Amino acid sequence: MRVSKKLLWIGLPLATIAVGLAFGLKSFANPGPKMPNLTAAQAGVKVVTLARGLENPWGLAFLPNGQLLVTEKPGRLRFVDSAGTLSEPITGLPAISTDAQGGLLGLALDPNFASNQRIYMSFSEPDPDMPERNGTAVLRARLSGAALTEVTVIWRQAPKMESDYHFGSRLVFDREGYLYVTTGERYIGMKDAQKTNNAIGKVVRITTDGAPAPGNPFLQDAAGFDEVFSYGHRNLQGAALHPETGVLWTHEHGPRGGDELNIIRPGRNYGWPEITYGIDYDMSTITEYTAKPGMEQPIHYWVPSIAPSGMTFYTADKYPGWKGNILIGSLAHSRLVRLVIEGEKVMQEIQMLGELEERLRDVVQGPDGYIYLLTDNEDGRILRLDPAA
Amino acid sequence: MRVSKKLLWIGLPLATIAVGLAFGLKSFANPGPKMPNLTAAQAGVKVVTLARGLENPWGLAFLPNGQLLVTEKPGRLRFVDSAGTLSEPITGLPAISTDAQGGLLGLALDPNFASNQRIYMSFSEPDPDMPERNGTAVLRARLSGAALTEVTVIWRQAPKMESDYHFGSRLVFDREGYLYVTTGERYIGMKDAQKTNNAIGKVVRITTDGAPAPGNPFLQDAAGFDEVFSYGHRNLQGAALHPETGVLWTHEHGPRGGDELNIIRPGRNYGWPEITYGIDYDMSTITEYTAKPGMEQPIHYWVPSIAPSGMTFYTADKYPGWKGNILIGSLAHSRLVRLVIEGEKVMQEIQMLGELEERLRDVVQGPDGYIYLLTDNEDGRILRLDPAA
Repeated sequence: MRVSKKLLWIGLPLATIAVGLAFGLKSFANPGPKMPNLTAAQAGVKVVTLARGLENPWGLAFLPNGQLLVTEKPGRLRFVDSAGTLSEPITGLPAISTDAQGGLLGLALDPNFASNQRIYMSFSEPDPDMPERNGTAVLRARLSGAALTEVTVIWRQAPKMESDYHFGSRLVFDREGYLYVTTGERYIGMKDAQKTNNAIGKVVRITTDGAPAPGNPFLQDAAGFDEVFSYGHRNLQGAALHPETGVLWTHEHGPRGGDELNIIRPGRNYGWPEITYGIDYDMSTITEYTAKPGMEQPIHYWVPSIAPSGMTFYTADKYPGWKGNILIGSLAHSRLVRLVIEGEKVMQEIQMLGELEERLRDVVQGPDGYIYLLTDNEDGRILRLDPAA
Repeated sequence: MRVSKKLLWIGLPLATIAVGLAFGLKSFANPGPKMPNLTAAQAGVKVVTLARGLENPWGLAFLPNGQLLVTEKPGRLRFVDSAGTLSEPITGLPAISTDAQGGLLGLALDPNFASNQRIYMSFSEPDPDMPERNGTAVLRARLSGAALTEVTVIWRQAPKMESDYHFGSRLVFDREGYLYVTTGERYIGMKDAQKTNNAIGKVVRITTDGAPAPGNPFLQDAAGFDEVFSYGHRNLQGAALHPETGVLWTHEHGPRGGDELNIIRPGRNYGWPEITYGIDYDMSTITEYTAKPGMEQPIHYWVPSIAPSGMTFYTADKYPGWKGNILIGSLAHSRLVRLVIEGEKVMQEIQMLGELEERLRDVVQGPDGYIYLLTDNEDGRILRLDPAA
């Protein structure tokens, strides 16, 4: 009984996607049925709450000592121990804009954290002279007990804009030790996403000092920003290195539908807002085009939107059949999305955990091989997925 | 059988609205069931096609000689005769930005058209020096046979912006002969909607020469724009004078949900983007507030969005029970919305004609007392609603 239901649930969305792709559908009022949801039991997992009481947690990292480090959107950084106890906020953070989507957001440990205790965080930084303007920025700091020291803002998205939306903010180190920063187009800068002479709607790649990374695609282009790695993006809240190729994969929010999964290649244009599978903005057309020459196609897209946040490639063996899959959190449907991939193709999509009814903000594989989730809530939780007995 | 179904269809949405209002619901992923649809037969009307082949028609007016005048978004103005024959485009239009939501849009006849043959049209006007920038503008012209003469742009929305969205554009004369122009906040100017020193996200009120109308609320305010009548609006594509009070009623698009029906009073702030019943933008919160001191509440709102366009008070007797109701076109659900009002309260909402599966762009009561609709389509139609036999 359970098996046949599972097949049905998996088959239906695949058929939907197949039909959508085949006909290039871009319908108006009814973007099609929502993907079925597998409960935790149906997905073969058990959801364990490790900690609660985090206010809109955004980024999660595992420290070598077994503790967790968590950013909270309102501008706090905390330790969480294995008993789920939250520390007092770690001191030393700079001024942060916390209106709407702004706040303390992405988090990454230095590849050499064990020796240098350096961490990196992205946040929405107000312009000191015009505080109604802000932009994504990345700070580097040393974690010294319960304090940040040597706090340096190593990179600032230019230009700062008067907007509280679309800050991107995932931080991912590549294998050469350079840092990818995903940004957003600040909602009001959609047309800037198509230009390379700004950092709006871009994936950027920098050194740990914030300098443009060697090999970046626009270094030789007098007009292009040296830190830009790819452009034509809307708002990227998920990014991860492919475990075999080392290439960056990202997802981004579409306007209303049209969320995308992309493979990021240097200097490429991912099309926003010239092309999108999003059907419209408040029911009015943004663009009629889903493809144009010189613009990259997503390898997967969602209509309606799942509002993706957080992303990881699963590389361990705790859950049968998940190895090599992509896991993505969904804010919209409060679900965990599992994508089965082969090479650069998405073969199957499974959505699960909708019964939690919580927006999922980050998805991280722990050093123990288990999946950890952050729920986006005023009483946000850290969840661990255990294999069902 | 039919009666009981009707009662059910009317009762269900009312219950939904009542529950929503009672609990101030602002849910995330599931904004509630769509309103049921009455077919034409169930609504007691028959849909008659008067003309077809109009490319995305936007505004409709009745000439004294029985002909219709129609704007097409791509920048054309045509006569349509009683046989449904379209004239060649009327000559004399200025340069128009027609990307995305831009184009030739609103249309109104001068109150003294019979003697002066003057018409007014709103359109998205490119900046001659920076054509990627544009803004809503209003032109006045004399209709001289198949040509416009004495074409004058009497008002320009300032500042022009690099955006192809949210042009507002309904034109309504008040009883004193002043012209209300509804605008949008250009999508990228949402924060400007809260300021009175620009024309972004405003209802403006001007003379037929384009000067600020006497009595406007910010005439004595050195900082406020003299033409501004009300502010804090998002994108108003429908407006009509209340037939008894002469006061302007408008509707506007919400971000994702949160479309509003408002009564426009001078100098008032309608709250966008500080307050909205829209639940989110691509599933991320715009604002947590639905109300704040000093900001007006809508008298009705829609979650999910209907994407309203066109609006009229029905004042004739062709359809039993409709007199005094408001009729609004819906782009999202391809429906005609009928609101039963008492004083300033919406008592009941009925949606109909969804089976047409066409976006409705304008809703006009003809001098014959029948309702005429424009369908927003590359092969757009003019429809007339006849009472069912």
